[in-house]
Amino acid sequence: MNLLLALLHSGQTQRRAVAKAITLLESTRADHRAEADALLTALLPHTGKSFRLGISGVPGVGKSTFIEVLGLYLISLGHRVAVLAIDPSSTVSGGSILGDKTRMEMLSVNESAFIRPSPSSGTLGGVASHTREAMLVCEAAGYDVVIVETVGVGQSEVAVASMTDMFVLMQLPNSGDDLQAIKKGVMELADLVVINKADIDSAASTRAEAQITSSLRAYGRHAPAVRSAPTVRPELVEGLNTTEASTGSARTGEVWQTQVMQMSALQSIGIDSFWQRVQRYQTMQSQNGKLAAKRESQALAWMWEQIWDGLKQQFHANARVQALLPLLTKQVVGGQMAASTAARQVLHLSMNQSV
Amino acid sequence: MNLLLALLHSGQTQRRAVAKAITLLESTRADHRAEADALLTALLPHTGKSFRLGISGVPGVGKSTFIEVLGLYLISLGHRVAVLAIDPSSTVSGGSILGDKTRMEMLSVNESAFIRPSPSSGTLGGVASHTREAMLVCEAAGYDVVIVETVGVGQSEVAVASMTDMFVLMQLPNSGDDLQAIKKGVMELADLVVINKADIDSAASTRAEAQITSSLRAYGRHAPAVRSAPTVRPELVEGLNTTEASTGSARTGEVWQTQVMQMSALQSIGIDSFWQRVQRYQTMQSQNGKLAAKRESQALAWMWEQIWDGLKQQFHANARVQALLPLLTKQVVGGQMAASTAARQVLHLSMNQSV
Repeated sequence: MNLLLALLHSGQTQRRAVAKAITLLESTRADHRAEADALLTALLPHTGKSFRLGISGVPGVGKSTFIEVLGLYLISLGHRVAVLAIDPSSTVSGGSILGDKTRMEMLSVNESAFIRPSPSSGTLGGVASHTREAMLVCEAAGYDVVIVETVGVGQSEVAVASMTDMFVLMQLPNSGDDLQAIKKGVMELADLVVINKADIDSAASTRAEAQITSSLRAYGRHAPAVRSAPTVRPELVEGLNTTEASTGSARTGEVWQTQVMQMSALQSIGIDSFWQRVQRYQTMQSQNGKLAAKRESQALAWMWEQIWDGLKQQFHANARVQALLPLLTKQVVGGQMAASTAARQVLHLSMNQSV
Repeated sequence: MNLLLALLHSGQTQRRAVAKAITLLESTRADHRAEADALLTALLPHTGKSFRLGISGVPGVGKSTFIEVLGLYLISLGHRVAVLAIDPSSTVSGGSILGDKTRMEMLSVNESAFIRPSPSSGTLGGVASHTREAMLVCEAAGYDVVIVETVGVGQSEVAVASMTDMFVLMQLPNSGDDLQAIKKGVMELADLVVINKADIDSAASTRAEAQITSSLRAYGRHAPAVRSAPTVRPELVEGLNTTEASTGSARTGEVWQTQVMQMSALQSIGIDSFWQRVQRYQTMQSQNGKLAAKRESQALAWMWEQIWDGLKQQFHANARVQALLPLLTKQVVGGQMAASTAARQVLHLSMNQSV
């Protein structure tokens, strides 16, 4: 297992080994898959020590700029940063825009960073699964901050939230966006909401912050603001109003409440405040045991998701099912057969074959 | 097939035949199931001619009173009314509160009504499936309005919306409730939102109506109010303010937009206005083809849901899977095996057995 050794040995050849291992894990060839599973099991004891950060936002919100600035900031603090992407559109186009390294020019050439585009084939479930495995490879290679990014469309946000320790939702200082996020249920996933490009329109950003805070409070995801408490005061970080309405609760209570903050990644304003919040989240959720519990339930949920996906694939690959299904579908749509009767017939086939 | 004949023949023995057929369809005995499938297929040509109305709301909103008053009103118009229930709690308690006939004393003794409690065992998926089949039986027996009711908790609302032509959400004149409904995504299912008990607090009801209308508009489920259009004016039905902000759009456009109305079922206020809206919905969605398309996609979705449920049951019943799964689960939780590796191992077992 030379690949494993190359992975674990930090040095000039490590980045190539990481890339090679991820490619192996993405392969659909049966012999590759067996090798990949052996590699995964061998590297597993070396995983889990990173912080897994999910970042989502609609195109144009400034994800690439933010991740580049954040990545370089973290490297300056001594961290090693891996950036992975889940691009739901790449499964259609066959290519990934999100993972384009030229988007993060400075970060991609940095020795302490590793950037990997989205796997470009398969269902979202398959892509997400490859990304989870890629995350384990990066962790074994010693990247202690793994960022998984995705665009704010479709179900990819749920996938990213279900594989990371903390989920960050990026928003534009544009009221109304928050309702869209609420509609899709994405706001409920967020541990931290970042309003980026706050330098462009400070008044709009502050309005958006108030609106999102109020929405979160209605969902019970955000502690009620204790306006009279002396610990709560607007923080003025680098000239931007980054209020933190839940500070009072967060400091006295034990469970993290979703926060809202403003930032300008392009101007490098708010990056350190962002990272302070991430660290506070990590400390709090480690101490109260929620982080460990989250990772356990994520691993089990991932296992079951893969089992059901696999069962569906086996079902569709069944020749007798393939032969009967079109007729049954036609009869159900045409009202000649009850849907439940059709389901029982096709399940009977699948069952009989497995005896 | 005497049961089929008894079902189709309207007369004194029909109600007993309907009850007997539904009991047969709920049976888990293999020989009963075969008989039930034969019955289903035989009665299918006689189904589909009713209007399927889903009604949901939290306990205390007044569903029973509303359904009793509505049912008697419809019978006075010459309809025959069946009431079925999906009670997610009945699968735990083993008994159904929802279906308690004593709740609807007048309706239950009426010759033109049939009331059936929720199936009291099985998963929600199983209960929903039994209710769909019961609906087909009622349709074959000539009940031309089938009401499926459920409480506003859990996923039962999604189940009811996916088996009915029109989904009605009942609300109390209590602001804040609407946000709860939005959170759970239930508001998005609603074709009509009814604020019941509007006689108790008229001001609160009007506020609630405005708030819900505004929420629906934000979701694009409600046409923008054209306040200057002459066709839009507040309707004063029986002393209650039952505004209909989307009237303008609904009359000129072709697709139904979710409406909000006030009512007092206990005072029998708003029942005829409610039924007018239901009829308008039925006419509009029939003419634009959406009703037929909805039923087709519901039937197919039902088939697939049953197929996946069945596959899961087959999987869990697999002895080799049962033997291996606890160990794999332990290893995944303990971090000794990647979730994807565990999934592949267990799928391999399930696959090998089926060769």
